[in-house]
Amino acid sequence: MGSEKSRVPELKKPRSAALFDNSLCFVQFQYAIISVMSIKVIPGGTITSPQGFLAGATYIGLKTKGDDPLDLGILCSEVPCVAAGLFTTNKVKAAPVILCQRNLRGNKAQAIVVNSGCANACTGRQGLADAEHMAALAARSLGLQPQDVLVASTGVIGKHLPMKQVSEGIQSMSISSEGGHTLASAITTTDTFPKEIAVRVKLGRDEITIGGIAKGAGMIHPNMATLLCFLATDAAVSPVLLKKALKNAVDASFNMITIDGDTSPNDSAIILANGLAGNKVIRSGSTEAEEFQRALNEVCLYLAKSIAQDGEGATKLIQVTVEGALNVEQARIAARTIAGSSLVKAAIHGSDPNWGRIIAALGRSGVDMQESKVDLYFDKLRVMGAGCPLPLDKKRAKSILDRAGVPIRICLNLGKAKATAWGCDLSEEYVTINSEYTT
Amino acid sequence: MGSEKSRVPELKKPRSAALFDNSLCFVQFQYAIISVMSIKVIPGGTITSPQGFLAGATYIGLKTKGDDPLDLGILCSEVPCVAAGLFTTNKVKAAPVILCQRNLRGNKAQAIVVNSGCANACTGRQGLADAEHMAALAARSLGLQPQDVLVASTGVIGKHLPMKQVSEGIQSMSISSEGGHTLASAITTTDTFPKEIAVRVKLGRDEITIGGIAKGAGMIHPNMATLLCFLATDAAVSPVLLKKALKNAVDASFNMITIDGDTSPNDSAIILANGLAGNKVIRSGSTEAEEFQRALNEVCLYLAKSIAQDGEGATKLIQVTVEGALNVEQARIAARTIAGSSLVKAAIHGSDPNWGRIIAALGRSGVDMQESKVDLYFDKLRVMGAGCPLPLDKKRAKSILDRAGVPIRICLNLGKAKATAWGCDLSEEYVTINSEYTT
Repeated sequence: MGSEKSRVPELKKPRSAALFDNSLCFVQFQYAIISVMSIKVIPGGTITSPQGFLAGATYIGLKTKGDDPLDLGILCSEVPCVAAGLFTTNKVKAAPVILCQRNLRGNKAQAIVVNSGCANACTGRQGLADAEHMAALAARSLGLQPQDVLVASTGVIGKHLPMKQVSEGIQSMSISSEGGHTLASAITTTDTFPKEIAVRVKLGRDEITIGGIAKGAGMIHPNMATLLCFLATDAAVSPVLLKKALKNAVDASFNMITIDGDTSPNDSAIILANGLAGNKVIRSGSTEAEEFQRALNEVCLYLAKSIAQDGEGATKLIQVTVEGALNVEQARIAARTIAGSSLVKAAIHGSDPNWGRIIAALGRSGVDMQESKVDLYFDKLRVMGAGCPLPLDKKRAKSILDRAGVPIRICLNLGKAKATAWGCDLSEEYVTINSEYTT
Repeated sequence: MGSEKSRVPELKKPRSAALFDNSLCFVQFQYAIISVMSIKVIPGGTITSPQGFLAGATYIGLKTKGDDPLDLGILCSEVPCVAAGLFTTNKVKAAPVILCQRNLRGNKAQAIVVNSGCANACTGRQGLADAEHMAALAARSLGLQPQDVLVASTGVIGKHLPMKQVSEGIQSMSISSEGGHTLASAITTTDTFPKEIAVRVKLGRDEITIGGIAKGAGMIHPNMATLLCFLATDAAVSPVLLKKALKNAVDASFNMITIDGDTSPNDSAIILANGLAGNKVIRSGSTEAEEFQRALNEVCLYLAKSIAQDGEGATKLIQVTVEGALNVEQARIAARTIAGSSLVKAAIHGSDPNWGRIIAALGRSGVDMQESKVDLYFDKLRVMGAGCPLPLDKKRAKSILDRAGVPIRICLNLGKAKATAWGCDLSEEYVTINSEYTT
């Protein structure tokens, strides 16, 4: 794996060396696949790796904790972009989400202004006015129209934004093509490291780049569970395809991770495509569209797994694969339910091979199953066969559960569909973090 | 409240004195209501308080931890009973659940044999044969037919029962009308105290008694979330009414508590009615039926709250009331979703007035709501009004959240329906308990 290592984006502040080294196996494995597919990961790549994207960040006093207190940032394309977004399914929608959904009606945008530390959610009319003001301030500073600017916020719910500081921060901010890393830091809250990646893809004679950043850590659950994810590409893409490609990529990545079962009012995934790569516009149904989809999937999958791995208090990444389901939707539901079970997560935290909890969670998920057909594996160790317990090699089971990346596999043996979900263990530290978040 | 105190059933081994004293306010309040309704709580009452019910318990080595290691018990009526049961909605059903559903087809039963420490779930055909054998052994010992005996198990999933010990235990067990307390202890696993209660009700000139015991602590979530609950009454009740009354009582009690979001393959609530009180058979639609329902509701509510209060690692009981919903079902869904949110539970553990998480959970529940109409209260302290944050009296908020019983109230201001759910806080101890359950 040595040769892969140089390609791995530098993850700052990993929670522990062990987590960093071992869990990354998943990510490195993924890189191996990527190289086969002629999708190349750009070392140190980020959201400003595609041509014509600029970013910057600053500190305006919204975040009080942490040693890297950037909390306001801007992403801007040099030219107008085709744009698409997916947003929270929570009935409580933060003001910036309402604004984005409105501004994206024409499938166009050119910039995103974002803050962490305050979610601007549950803030009523004042909150919406603040989000609009934020867009207008950024537009003025960037020489754009307010409707070209999208807004995102993350942090404590039920607090108004301090607009004076926001205004000063936007006016004083400088942006550059090197600014992606600072933007990735600026959107974090309880994350222990920023999540960023960029890949380059050959499309015939053209070469396009996709970059992305995300933040996670808490209130993470399938159903547009990103909290925030921003994607940028210099590819020329039709609005119809961009929307579809984003949905497909999110369904197999951000919608397949869970940390604590809570969805946020602020969940947003936004993609901007500025066309500066000079390629022929990619449209649905073409070979180029397939390649673009694959590359976008990889970017989203990497970011989603990074979020799961960096869950609040997490010490392990859990990977749950459900095979032999009647259809993909059922496989997804089953995998997500298991990855989200508090009892499963706690058992894995303690490397307790209490696999009955996995089967109980599977049964609770409600998907079609016949207990007498189910096989369950910890990695390659089968612990349940045809619905019955097998003699348990406790030492081997524990050695698998001790890993920083724990693979669980279930074969329903009913059909051919398959899905994988990612989550993290439930630790005492999760409780500690979340029992003193605002105090 | 002094005069009420003598009526409170003695709760053994409460997790802390503070929890015991303060949370009991809820229970004591309930007793106040009971006294108005001419339903009397029997001091020290349990499942053998109704006439003609005998119980006993013994130790056969299934439980390895704890200082009160009873793990096998029997409940038996002196005469045949009308019987009803409600069971897990988990697609994985433990062997004893399958047996009970079969034996209850005729709405009759006379005894229950139960063990803790081993769930006899995910045990295939052997598991079902073991459950049948367990019923047959108890039947022989009690002079009954196997089909008159119901079986229940709770504990670790995926392990076979040691039938030699089960057989010896059943043969050596003695039962008596004083045996309810030992049976209540024998069904516990990670519970810190047994849950038991009995009430006496005047029905015209007759007097009937209802007793109940339950166990909880983990894998507790709305959807027949009891793990185990056994109810006994000396009232004569028609089979149709008994079934309906059990469903109604469970919907408003056991189905309104949540500890960790996981339902168990073993969840069972069973009621036996032996008619020895000599009353005229109670039938649907009568005044007596209403009184019987009220009394049964109170018994189930007391047991359900005791389970929520004694959740694994719990230090606080959380009571979530949702008012002004369009209908009861929506009010229930909203209340349960909030009571079950890991982030809400962790915040309350740390007395952190981070109320945005409550609103985020409400939004995630998917019930009809208009954010701009929602009011949120910690007890009587309004923290959000008409969808907007109000200036927060942090000291007062903290003093409410510091209580061992934390009341949260949400007014949706859309309709007239209302529901209450109970849960507990999420503590570091929950993680510790569940990361080393089988190791």
